Amino acid sequence: MKKDDKKINAAIIIIGNEILSGRTQDINVVVISNWLNELGVKLEEVRVIPDKENYIVRTIKDVRKRFMYIFTTGGIGPTHDDITSKSIAKAFNLSYGYHKEAYEILEKYYTPEEFNEGRKKMAMLPDRASLIFNPSSGAPGFVVDNVYCLPGVPSILKSMLGGLNNKIKGGKKILSKTITLRTVESEIAESLEKVQKKFHQLEIGSYPFFRSGKIGVSIVIRSTEPNRIKNCVTQIQSFIKQKKIKILK
Amino acid sequence: MKKDDKKINAAIIIIGNEILSGRTQDINVVVISNWLNELGVKLEEVRVIPDKENYIVRTIKDVRKRFMYIFTTGGIGPTHDDITSKSIAKAFNLSYGYHKEAYEILEKYYTPEEFNEGRKKMAMLPDRASLIFNPSSGAPGFVVDNVYCLPGVPSILKSMLGGLNNKIKGGKKILSKTITLRTVESEIAESLEKVQKKFHQLEIGSYPFFRSGKIGVSIVIRSTEPNRIKNCVTQIQSFIKQKKIKILK
Repeated sequence: MKKDDKKINAAIIIIGNEILSGRTQDINVVVISNWLNELGVKLEEVRVIPDKENYIVRTIKDVRKRFMYIFTTGGIGPTHDDITSKSIAKAFNLSYGYHKEAYEILEKYYTPEEFNEGRKKMAMLPDRASLIFNPSSGAPGFVVDNVYCLPGVPSILKSMLGGLNNKIKGGKKILSKTITLRTVESEIAESLEKVQKKFHQLEIGSYPFFRSGKIGVSIVIRSTEPNRIKNCVTQIQSFIKQKKIKILK
Repeated sequence: MKKDDKKINAAIIIIGNEILSGRTQDINVVVISNWLNELGVKLEEVRVIPDKENYIVRTIKDVRKRFMYIFTTGGIGPTHDDITSKSIAKAFNLSYGYHKEAYEILEKYYTPEEFNEGRKKMAMLPDRASLIFNPSSGAPGFVVDNVYCLPGVPSILKSMLGGLNNKIKGGKKILSKTITLRTVESEIAESLEKVQKKFHQLEIGSYPFFRSGKIGVSIVIRSTEPNRIKNCVTQIQSFIKQKKIKILK
């Protein structure tokens, strides 16, 4: 990364042996990414790493200065493999222990009988963490500097994002336009490259697909500027017409 | 990563703006990971990075010495955003141009009229790449040292893995056993941690879930040693019985 690459960007760190083992299909990236598009924050990297303290510490240290926002998912529950809070404390050289506010939230959420050691562990956080409200289950997420720690369970994670909207200072909403064609990539490669060169500020992607035995290509144009997208689409439509390619949508 | 961490391990690098933008749900990680389990290779990290040359070069340089095998997905097609081959050449300081064998495969696959510039581009590879056979469509994948470059389209990627089986020197098959319980994590956290400490060579994960309004926890035990898994399961079953927790499967 060049230092002058000062975009409003983000990385997601998935702390999850269950994703690496192939047991669980991650579905949080799509949710977070689309939420970030709305906020005008560009997701630039995702990493999936093991539930290992030294691995988490090393990764957080590596990414936290390169991205404006870091979102971690997973590892904030009550079991032995939930080591995100402790690892984040270590990455930031902070002490780790009961967080007064988090403890009070959980104490109120559970009956005294329910509030056992496992549940108390969820109140152990880096000492200067601020909390992320969890409307689904008691245990809050937390923020240290630019690192936002969220749970791995998709329904809970999803319910917590809304509460973060006013904490994220994004930019212009990231827009995208898709043109889907009955063609193959090689038929449009040369013309599309010319358009990309002309509109070098836009991100133009070409994605072949095979659905119900039929092939096609989706061209995706992304930018924060609706007029640039519109002009780019016009130029793409022009070569599509010339080549007599069928537009599917 | 410590140098003595000499496991048979792998990383996946997903080269894909379409995943980062939230447009496309990656489904390749689960497929590659389960294939690697069978071969006895442990997937230890996944990264999703943009279709940018300097980003790809930097990432490959960062990971290639830390993992025994690197698998990249995406960016080997004919369009302007397909820059994996060129970037891998740069990461290894190799020249990039028409690869005789790949060119011949594609020349044979297409009619002379079909074999246009876009398709010819798919024969441009790092100069000492060896090929990965593609039984679905013409364009081969390729290998440079320990970096295996595969396409992003899931059906094509899947069809190419079988041909790699004898190129990957793995270890013992990675086994896993799942015990699914009608409980919450905090009820089992303490007992499970004791078992983990006793069986420190095993990877024990605890994953809460919410399905059709009902909650539960899956305990997953992973190891290459079936007997260790068996002994560990016995101990887990013992505390489950004591706690009178219902086993779902």
